Amino acid sequence: MAGEELRYEADGLSMSGALFRPAKATGATPGVLVFPEAFGLSAHALERAERIASELGYVALACDLWGERKQVTSLPEVMPMLGALMSDVPGMQSRGTAPLAALRAQAGVDGGRIAALGFCFGGTMSFELATCSDIKAAIGFHSGMKVPSLAAGGAGGVGSTKILAMIGQDDPAIPPDTRAEFIRVLTEAGVDWQVTLYGGVVHSFTNPEADGAGMPNVLRYDARADRRSWAQMTDLLAEVFG
Amino acid sequence: MAGEELRYEADGLSMSGALFRPAKATGATPGVLVFPEAFGLSAHALERAERIASELGYVALACDLWGERKQVTSLPEVMPMLGALMSDVPGMQSRGTAPLAALRAQAGVDGGRIAALGFCFGGTMSFELATCSDIKAAIGFHSGMKVPSLAAGGAGGVGSTKILAMIGQDDPAIPPDTRAEFIRVLTEAGVDWQVTLYGGVVHSFTNPEADGAGMPNVLRYDARADRRSWAQMTDLLAEVFG
Repeated sequence: MAGEELRYEADGLSMSGALFRPAKATGATPGVLVFPEAFGLSAHALERAERIASELGYVALACDLWGERKQVTSLPEVMPMLGALMSDVPGMQSRGTAPLAALRAQAGVDGGRIAALGFCFGGTMSFELATCSDIKAAIGFHSGMKVPSLAAGGAGGVGSTKILAMIGQDDPAIPPDTRAEFIRVLTEAGVDWQVTLYGGVVHSFTNPEADGAGMPNVLRYDARADRRSWAQMTDLLAEVFG
Repeated sequence: MAGEELRYEADGLSMSGALFRPAKATGATPGVLVFPEAFGLSAHALERAERIASELGYVALACDLWGERKQVTSLPEVMPMLGALMSDVPGMQSRGTAPLAALRAQAGVDGGRIAALGFCFGGTMSFELATCSDIKAAIGFHSGMKVPSLAAGGAGGVGSTKILAMIGQDDPAIPPDTRAEFIRVLTEAGVDWQVTLYGGVVHSFTNPEADGAGMPNVLRYDARADRRSWAQMTDLLAEVFG
């Protein structure tokens, strides 16, 4: 499940991504960027990238967030890092556009058919990348909906990129007013967006490791929402890669 | 596309449903009730029931709403009929439980694996049926979310029936406060529900005939939302029929 290391520079950092290729690729193959949760490139994101390749037949690049695959272990440590990154739009965008360029440069990858997806802050990364690139789709699982360039009036940059966000209704990190504002700015810009809500579901519903935090009202794995959101992602990728 | 006529009595009316069977069914086959828009059993609902059988391999019963397949042609005519039916819970439930019993009585149908779906008011019918039966799932496309028994505190009756509603964000017939109330009562009752919203989409997005009304800000076919909602329905049916 390690994939093949793919190194790239982004925002002044030396990044170590992991590339996964389908067993048999025929012709130019679509590519998918996979952005991890805020804590950095984790087993969870690597496993999902591996499945994108083995189950769906796309080339997947699991992206580094903090350089040299640094993983942050605590919320108190990661929050100020996130805050700084969210207020530095060029830096945040660089951490999306650099792996996008690295993926496009790979042999066998169809540079015209690339999508991005991510978990938690990785979803926010995907949406931010949608505002400054021509990816086909940006997909977020329990994704942050406070996206810097959207909040700053940049939804027009999303263009024809299709947006899909899948959210637990009871996720305290993404309250209804944040969802409504996300929806408002995308609608005003005429973006093709979808939002799916899951009843009785909170944050991190795709990540079995979430249960280890012992905060079931905030972070909790949900096998049904995990499977359903994967199916909806699969459907949108098939649509945009046509 | 006519199917086989299946007659049943409901709410004192003589109903004429249309049954569609998959070309080759092996063993006990799941069944799906298909409820039409408020105007009555239409070509649109018949076509969807046919596809449930031919594409998905389930036995589908397209249900009559007003008796003898009466079709109502105008909104001024149908609105008082709807109002009367919505305020007569036993009558409304009868128009769901009677075709449910008729479908279960068919040879080759697995009575333990039945779901209901519907369009516009047909979605409301499906959700109402969920409150008073043990169907596996109730699915609504641009479905009304003012469901008599839910509004009256009967969400507990939904039990383990899985609920899926797919709604155009700009549908003036199903405004955000109605969605929020639907979500609130289902959540309080611990129901397994999903709601998907589509940006830039209004009412009747599954029905190409909607464009004939000449009211594109209210009723409009949307090929993308039609295809996507069908895929999400397909996924949930596969999940509950296992």
